[in-house]
Formats: sequence, C-alpha cells, structure tokens
Amino acid sequence: MAVKAETLEWKRRSVVIVALTVLTSSQGILIAWTKRAGFYKYSVTTANFLVELLKCVISLVALFRVWQNEGVTEDNKLNTTFDEVKVYPIPAMLYLVKNLLQYYIFIYVDAPSYQVLKNLNIISTGVLYWLFLSRRLSNIQWCAFLLLALGCTTAQLNPSSEHVFQTHMEGWTMAIIMALLSGFAGVYTEAIMKKRPSRNINVQNFWLYIFGVVFNFGAMVVQDFNAITERGFFHGYTMSTFIMIINHALSGIAVSLVMKFADNIVKVYSTSVAMLFTALLSMGLFGFRLTLPFCLGTMIVSVAVYLHSQGKAT
Amino acid sequence: MAVKAETLEWKRRSVVIVALTVLTSSQGILIAWTKRAGFYKYSVTTANFLVELLKCVISLVALFRVWQNEGVTEDNKLNTTFDEVKVYPIPAMLYLVKNLLQYYIFIYVDAPSYQVLKNLNIISTGVLYWLFLSRRLSNIQWCAFLLLALGCTTAQLNPSSEHVFQTHMEGWTMAIIMALLSGFAGVYTEAIMKKRPSRNINVQNFWLYIFGVVFNFGAMVVQDFNAITERGFFHGYTMSTFIMIINHALSGIAVSLVMKFADNIVKVYSTSVAMLFTALLSMGLFGFRLTLPFCLGTMIVSVAVYLHSQGKAT
Repeated sequence: MAVKAETLEWKRRSVVIVALTVLTSSQGILIAWTKRAGFYKYSVTTANFLVELLKCVISLVALFRVWQNEGVTEDNKLNTTFDEVKVYPIPAMLYLVKNLLQYYIFIYVDAPSYQVLKNLNIISTGVLYWLFLSRRLSNIQWCAFLLLALGCTTAQLNPSSEHVFQTHMEGWTMAIIMALLSGFAGVYTEAIMKKRPSRNINVQNFWLYIFGVVFNFGAMVVQDFNAITERGFFHGYTMSTFIMIINHALSGIAVSLVMKFADNIVKVYSTSVAMLFTALLSMGLFGFRLTLPFCLGTMIVSVAVYLHSQGKAT
Repeated sequence: MAVKAETLEWKRRSVVIVALTVLTSSQGILIAWTKRAGFYKYSVTTANFLVELLKCVISLVALFRVWQNEGVTEDNKLNTTFDEVKVYPIPAMLYLVKNLLQYYIFIYVDAPSYQVLKNLNIISTGVLYWLFLSRRLSNIQWCAFLLLALGCTTAQLNPSSEHVFQTHMEGWTMAIIMALLSGFAGVYTEAIMKKRPSRNINVQNFWLYIFGVVFNFGAMVVQDFNAITERGFFHGYTMSTFIMIINHALSGIAVSLVMKFADNIVKVYSTSVAMLFTALLSMGLFGFRLTLPFCLGTMIVSVAVYLHSQGKAT
C-alpha cells in the first residue's frame, strides 16, 4: 500500500513536471512567434488581468467537479478563515512589485545584460529555499544548482552579453532585488501550498489567484485606463493573444501544482530545461542559429540535472 | 607507521601537483610574453631537442645524487633489459606524430576552432584512462571530468569560436586523432611509471627522455638542417628562449612525477587550472580583458574540481 501511494505520488510529480516544462516551452515559442509577427498592439495589463481571471475560473470549475464527486468536506470547502488566507496576497504582491520594477530596470541595465542578470533568479531561489523551507539540498545538489545557473547563462551568451560588465551598482542592486522578489514569491507560494497538505489544491489556487485578479485589475486601471475607455478592452487582440492568455493561465496552474506536489527546486529545473527546449524549437521553427555557447550550456544543464538526481541517492 | 606513510604520500602528491600547476601556468605566461615581444626567430626543433636533452641531463644528475646517498641497487641502476625498456619509446613516438599532425591540422581547422577542439584532449584522456588503467572514476567524478572539459571550453570562448561549426569532417577527424594520440601518450607514460613502483623515477625518466632526444634530433635534422648549418644552432636565441627551454624541461619532469605519484586525471585537472591561472595572470600582466565566458568557465571548472574531490568520498 505504501509502495502504491509512493508510485502514485511519483506519477503525479512526473505529470506536473512534464506539464510545466511543456507549457513553459510553448510559452517561449508563442512569445517569439508574436514578437516576430510584430504584435503587442494590445494593452499588456488587460492580458495579465485576463490570465489571472482565467486561472480563477479554471480553479472554480475544477472545484465544482470535486464537489460533485466527493461532496463538500472540511478540506475542499471554499470558505476560509482570516488566519488561513492572510498570507495568500503576499505572492501576488511580490510579483506585482517585481513587474513594476521590470519597467524601471531598463533605465540602468540594457537588454543583453538583463538576460545575463536574470539568471540570478536561480541562485536566489536556491538560497531562499535553503533559508526558509525545511528540506535540505546535499553538497552535490548545491553544485548541481550552481551549474544550472552557470549553464543557463552560458547557453544564452552572445557577444553583447559582455555589456554586463558595464552595469553600474544601481543596475546590479535592482537585478538582485528583482531576483529576491521572485525567489520570495516562489518560496511563499510553496509554503502556502504545503502548510495544509490535505487542503484541496483548487481552493488554495482560487484564493491565490483572486488576489492576482484584484492586483492586476488595479494595475490595469492605473496604467491603461485611457487606452481601454477610448479604444475598448480588447483593442489590438488577435487569435494569438488569446492563445497566449490560455497558455499563461495553464502555465500558472502548472506552477501551483509543482509547488504543491514537488518544490521550487524542481520548478527552477523545469523552467530552465524549458528555456533550452524553447531555444531548440526556435531554431527549427524560426531558423535561429545554433551557437557554441548554447551547445556548451545545454550540456552543462544536462550534467546539472543528472547530478541533482544522483545527489539525492547519497 | 601506515598513517605516516600515507601523510608522506599525500605531501608528495601535493608538491608535484602544485609544481606542475605553477610550471604550466608560467609556461603559458612565457609563451604569451615571447609572442608579444615578437620572438620565435629561432628554430623550434632545436629548442625541442634542447628541452629533451636538458630533461635527460637533470635526470642523470638526480640519479648520481641518489647513487651517492643510497649506493647502486637493483631499483636505481641505470642498466635495463629489453623487456623493461621496450615500451619507453612509445610515448615519445606518439608525441612526435601528434606534433607532426599539428602542422597539417591548420589546413583543415582554423586557429579559433582548434582552441575549441583542443579540449577534446580532456575527454580522450578520461576515456582512455578508463579503458586501459585499472582505477575507476565514480559517476560524480565522470560528471566532474565532463564539466572540466565544458568549463575550459567556455572559458576560452570568443566570437570566433563559432568557426568550429564550419569545421569539416577531415578537421574533426584530425582533431580526434590528435586528442587520442596525446591521450594514449599520457596513459602509456602512466602505465610505464607505475608498472614497477619501486623502480627509481630518475632511471625511468632517463629512458623515457632519451628516446625523446633521439626522435627530436631526427625531426631537427629533417626540418631545419639548412637553417642550422647556415645560421648556426643557436641562431635567433635570446635570454627568453633559454628561460622557456628550462621551464619546458622542468614542466616535463613535473608531468613524469605526477604520472608516477598521482595519475592522468590529476594531470588534466592541474593543467586545466593552470590554463585559467595563465589567463588571469595575462590580464594582470598584459592587460587582456576579462570576459564573461571566462568568468563562467572558471566557475564551472571550480565546481568540477570540488565535485571530483567530493566524488572520491562516496
């Protein structure tokens, strides 16, 4: 029986990991596709708002099906206490602050340097995971995690990457703050999802996303009120915009599932591998050239994934 | 007593490893220095011949001192049997063939690509070590070795490195053959040095180097007979040429010591770390610019060295 439960857990973990990797890869491809087609004529804030709303709706639909099958129980009822829900707005708030900073960082950091500095996310997630969540990484797994960051950075190297040496202290500080914000958001989400393991994931997701809806509604009104009232909510939307919104919503739910049934470390590995898949697919689809740093980086990331799995055994 | 012998062995290993690293680093610096000063007006074959001769002389001098202290024994007598000495010419021969190929490979491979392909040496040494010598590497150590090759390649990346993708099959074949030749030479040398552990190292070195003297004399006559007879043996020599010859001879002896008291894997780590030291020193001495790939590569190599030491423990 214990073995069966373990197999089930392992299967569930694998499914959510594969889902996250596939969704994140296709997300990259969709972004590359819309960029090439020269889109981006819609208000980004309306799309973000719709993503959060769609995640909420999907969680509710899934919850209704659970109620139909299992009936309403203590673990799957939607009502909550202030004590349970008080930490739920924090990840949404952290992401909002990070997204706001995203607009300002480009004053201090150019795009190629930002691509390099973004990999600080991996390091910050590892450090915060180690500081705030109870599970520990072995020495080998720490090496693997460092190699993951180094491999991802190597894979994205291009001649302009050298600009990072011209980045001033302000740029570095902002990049580190942004990495810490997204690291904290991840660690918070995992802590929330795992605090009550028996609590139904759809209820947890609903409360997580509803704050995302509220915050993104605020951002939308503040930033794009005029554009929306003058040109309409859906101005500039095309089929690809809707596909991207659906993809983002599903990716977001996959992240929640990974946080509940796996952890932040797994999330970082999945999204890093997805980044490499995206690049490979882009080569096939859009004729991007294969570069030597990309090949080296991919091999380094592969070794990191293998070392992470080997590190567990010891 | 066993602990004392172990400490002594550990100390001896450390000394030879540090010696090899320091000598190889300074070798790189000397080469960079003479290149910058625009030297290279002497016949390279005469220098190679003198390096081998000097190694022979140093081994003999060291052997005389051993005889003075210990008297002549079965293990430190210079005479040998055909059965003992028959494999000694093989490493010198392999290096000679490799050096000859070095002239031809540049027909098929340009310099930046060769810098990338040279790192195949690391892989070939690992594979041949595993195939022909009895000691095994753990999975973690294999990963570390692969990372060493990837890290060294990353550290040497520059925009021209992409040329490697234009290298044709002939170029790849030659690069692989050269990597195998130098790998075989290393593995052969280690097998020779370790076959009779009690045999005095100076005797082994003498027989190893005397074939180097013979082969390099041949190469010198074939390639530079006219230049030598017309302009003299030492034409174009400067103080720096002699310093380089002394440095090469000492490096060669350090390699022998590493083969006797450590192994090929240690040698590859030492020379790879030396390559990074050389680059760092060059930045200080000649104002070479620090590049992002170099920083990433250095970190990857550092993780590899740490993993190699961790891998042993398991």
